[in-house]
Amino acid sequence: MNTNTALPRSARLSLAQQLAARYAEQIQQRLILPGARLPSVRECARQHGISPYTVVAAYDQLLAHGLLEARKQRGFFVREPAGNSAALKRPSGKPDLSPNVGEPVDASALIRGMFQADAKRAPGLGTLPGEWLDLPMIQTAMRQVLTQGNAQDQLALHYGEPAGDARLRQALAQRMSDLGIAAEPGQLVTTVGATHALDLITRSLLQPGDAVLVDDPGWAIEFARLSQAGMRLLPVPRGAEGPDLAVMAQLIAQHRPKMYVTVSVLHNPTGNSLSLANAHQLLKLAEAADLLIVEDDTYAFLAPNHAPRLSALDGLRRTIYVSGFSKILTPAWRVGYVAASADKIAPLTQLKLISTLTTSPMLERAVAHCLEKGQLRRHAERVLARLDAARQRSMRLAESAGCRALTPPTGLFGWIDTGLDTETLAQRLMMEDWLIAPGALFSPTRRPGTLMRINYATSQDAHFWRLLEKLRKNN
Amino acid sequence: MNTNTALPRSARLSLAQQLAARYAEQIQQRLILPGARLPSVRECARQHGISPYTVVAAYDQLLAHGLLEARKQRGFFVREPAGNSAALKRPSGKPDLSPNVGEPVDASALIRGMFQADAKRAPGLGTLPGEWLDLPMIQTAMRQVLTQGNAQDQLALHYGEPAGDARLRQALAQRMSDLGIAAEPGQLVTTVGATHALDLITRSLLQPGDAVLVDDPGWAIEFARLSQAGMRLLPVPRGAEGPDLAVMAQLIAQHRPKMYVTVSVLHNPTGNSLSLANAHQLLKLAEAADLLIVEDDTYAFLAPNHAPRLSALDGLRRTIYVSGFSKILTPAWRVGYVAASADKIAPLTQLKLISTLTTSPMLERAVAHCLEKGQLRRHAERVLARLDAARQRSMRLAESAGCRALTPPTGLFGWIDTGLDTETLAQRLMMEDWLIAPGALFSPTRRPGTLMRINYATSQDAHFWRLLEKLRKNN
Repeated sequence: MNTNTALPRSARLSLAQQLAARYAEQIQQRLILPGARLPSVRECARQHGISPYTVVAAYDQLLAHGLLEARKQRGFFVREPAGNSAALKRPSGKPDLSPNVGEPVDASALIRGMFQADAKRAPGLGTLPGEWLDLPMIQTAMRQVLTQGNAQDQLALHYGEPAGDARLRQALAQRMSDLGIAAEPGQLVTTVGATHALDLITRSLLQPGDAVLVDDPGWAIEFARLSQAGMRLLPVPRGAEGPDLAVMAQLIAQHRPKMYVTVSVLHNPTGNSLSLANAHQLLKLAEAADLLIVEDDTYAFLAPNHAPRLSALDGLRRTIYVSGFSKILTPAWRVGYVAASADKIAPLTQLKLISTLTTSPMLERAVAHCLEKGQLRRHAERVLARLDAARQRSMRLAESAGCRALTPPTGLFGWIDTGLDTETLAQRLMMEDWLIAPGALFSPTRRPGTLMRINYATSQDAHFWRLLEKLRKNN
Repeated sequence: MNTNTALPRSARLSLAQQLAARYAEQIQQRLILPGARLPSVRECARQHGISPYTVVAAYDQLLAHGLLEARKQRGFFVREPAGNSAALKRPSGKPDLSPNVGEPVDASALIRGMFQADAKRAPGLGTLPGEWLDLPMIQTAMRQVLTQGNAQDQLALHYGEPAGDARLRQALAQRMSDLGIAAEPGQLVTTVGATHALDLITRSLLQPGDAVLVDDPGWAIEFARLSQAGMRLLPVPRGAEGPDLAVMAQLIAQHRPKMYVTVSVLHNPTGNSLSLANAHQLLKLAEAADLLIVEDDTYAFLAPNHAPRLSALDGLRRTIYVSGFSKILTPAWRVGYVAASADKIAPLTQLKLISTLTTSPMLERAVAHCLEKGQLRRHAERVLARLDAARQRSMRLAESAGCRALTPPTGLFGWIDTGLDTETLAQRLMMEDWLIAPGALFSPTRRPGTLMRINYATSQDAHFWRLLEKLRKNN
């Protein structure tokens, strides 16, 4: 969210115009809420390395557009924006990202912001930063795909197979077998990333009104997706060993849920993975309740192959396995997949066909190239080593800023207690171009609190932690 | 569907195994139905250019697997396949491609087949054949994207913007203005092809149980998609000038539909485009009934810019504009888009975000490159010239085979009366590796008949038409 990089029309605009446009966007997207005070002119000038005159010019423009109001002796405050802000807040009368409570900060806007964040200023980022990825591998794989074959079979010229590129599905079946999960290529369907896989599962296997068990904490997009599809969310507390099975048993008895959606390994945001004992008991419980389990293994490449997967224990009988490549290869290709028993794969493939036709065969074959030659595995090993170092540095900085980890540091994310209300903190930091991921984003009920999720790869800047320490002390 | 090209494991299989696998696949996908007679051994050997011994070996394998039965003096017949064929026929208890009637041939299987068809043997193909596309343009555009930018802004390394690549949306707004439709980039959202755009529209703007007007004839996938989402289909006869407005008015009065989904220009399968008068009256009717209109302009590049678009007349007030690049640039990139008023775009973008996160920024920027430099326009001009010639040749062949065009030949598709029941014909031709698109695929009620849709680009082979003539005479 850096002012200097993220403005789309920067080449044609003056610095003041850029700054004004930037604030206007954040106000309209409700990243900065009505009533919030903007930084003082002097403070803002310092933050952006520009002259106070430029800031005054920018604030003047925002005043003229009715986005700010000046209060005597107190500074500049955000007004309720005019126009279509209501539509942005709660589109179409359908459930928003905040299914149960009001919205101190607009979660969907915050999440939209994450997709355009500057990794250098986004401790809350959901992916590895671009510079951690292997661009030459990506370029080579795409070039290979573009130059193979003739007009009849060149992948750049044709629809993909409805179930997804056969060679990728072959490579994925091999990859799954490395994780102890036996799946034929015919049991796999490719998707537009893991989120699309989860969406196809919900739409083809559930009905509106069905109850669904989810991890608490868990991921806001997943809660929003299920709510939008008309599902009733049943949060299950997630502990160090896995879900709280006593609570789950109670919820099953009360609500007869059809499905449990979970990140079993390197859970987002806690980083916890299921213990073998918890996994076994969970499957017994699911068996007794005839519960489908969707295992979202998005962080698969950041975890050891031997970490127990529910799908490995269950053999894809009642488990449905979902994974993708956004967290290790690149988020830009949008390639994910789902593996399940044949009776579930048939309606999934049918729904994929009628709702998107096919996915891109070019991108899928490129992923296959990266998998087949072991390049992706070697890249993952390098990432893991780098992440180990980043984790140590981030945690040292976090602790020296007075923050505390709730769970043992592992994987990509840390689950950190800041001692400050993190929704307020998110807004305050947004004004200094820092993007964090407040704990409420991970609560099915948007429960506020003092927690936040950090990305170890993007939380190594001492400036950020010093700022946090200062805010803690001033609180 | 050519035996010699489409078998996935051909390198390791004998010819007999390949042939058996091929038939087994067609039988299991219900492209060849129980009770159908396979070609005689001699005929089959001739068709595939293989020895009769090979055919006998293949049929033996199919007998051994219980897929065929031999009837004395009469030949080899398909048995009801064992196993999961029921799941393939009607997945998940949800409406299939045949919402209202039984299924003489499995439409979803036929459509799946279309995505793997050999263009040389697919007069029913839905896209331009690969050799008609501009591979160098595609390769250059992708290479450009892959080599631009550094780790911070290289598109191959990051999620796209939730609404889609800003540069593509800018280029699309320009393109739409060439068609007389005024739209800001902020009114556009990119999608995984036009089908995904239609899906997002249905899910964000309609509720299950809503009535939706559709063109009759129209496209099977669209009918299936709407049915699967729980909509009630109201077919409106499509004439040379556009939809039958008297019927539409009656349906509106009776059923109060929320939406009309239509291909206004180069309608699939008839090739008809709306007259200006029909478009004007249609919009007045929609206005009075408060009807949303989804204008699917998938064939935009094959029609003149001045062909009247409903969205141009209406200014995107109650119209929602959908288009894509599968019919002109390539089906492999899966890039489509939707343009609408800001109040509709907000919930669409939100739904796109929670159901797929983002679309691939690489592919979108590559499309932008093709649009910005006028390359795509020049390619389209070459395609149109080639299509003119193909149309003439196809129609000459069709007429000499005793077939008749129902509508004046134009665009990519012809709507042809064969004089034969085309569902039976489709099955008969499938056995000789020809893929046609029977009329029932385009009927909201799966009404059988003697019509079929031909693709002018892939219907120029005299062998196909001679075979059809022979079948007509033997009928």
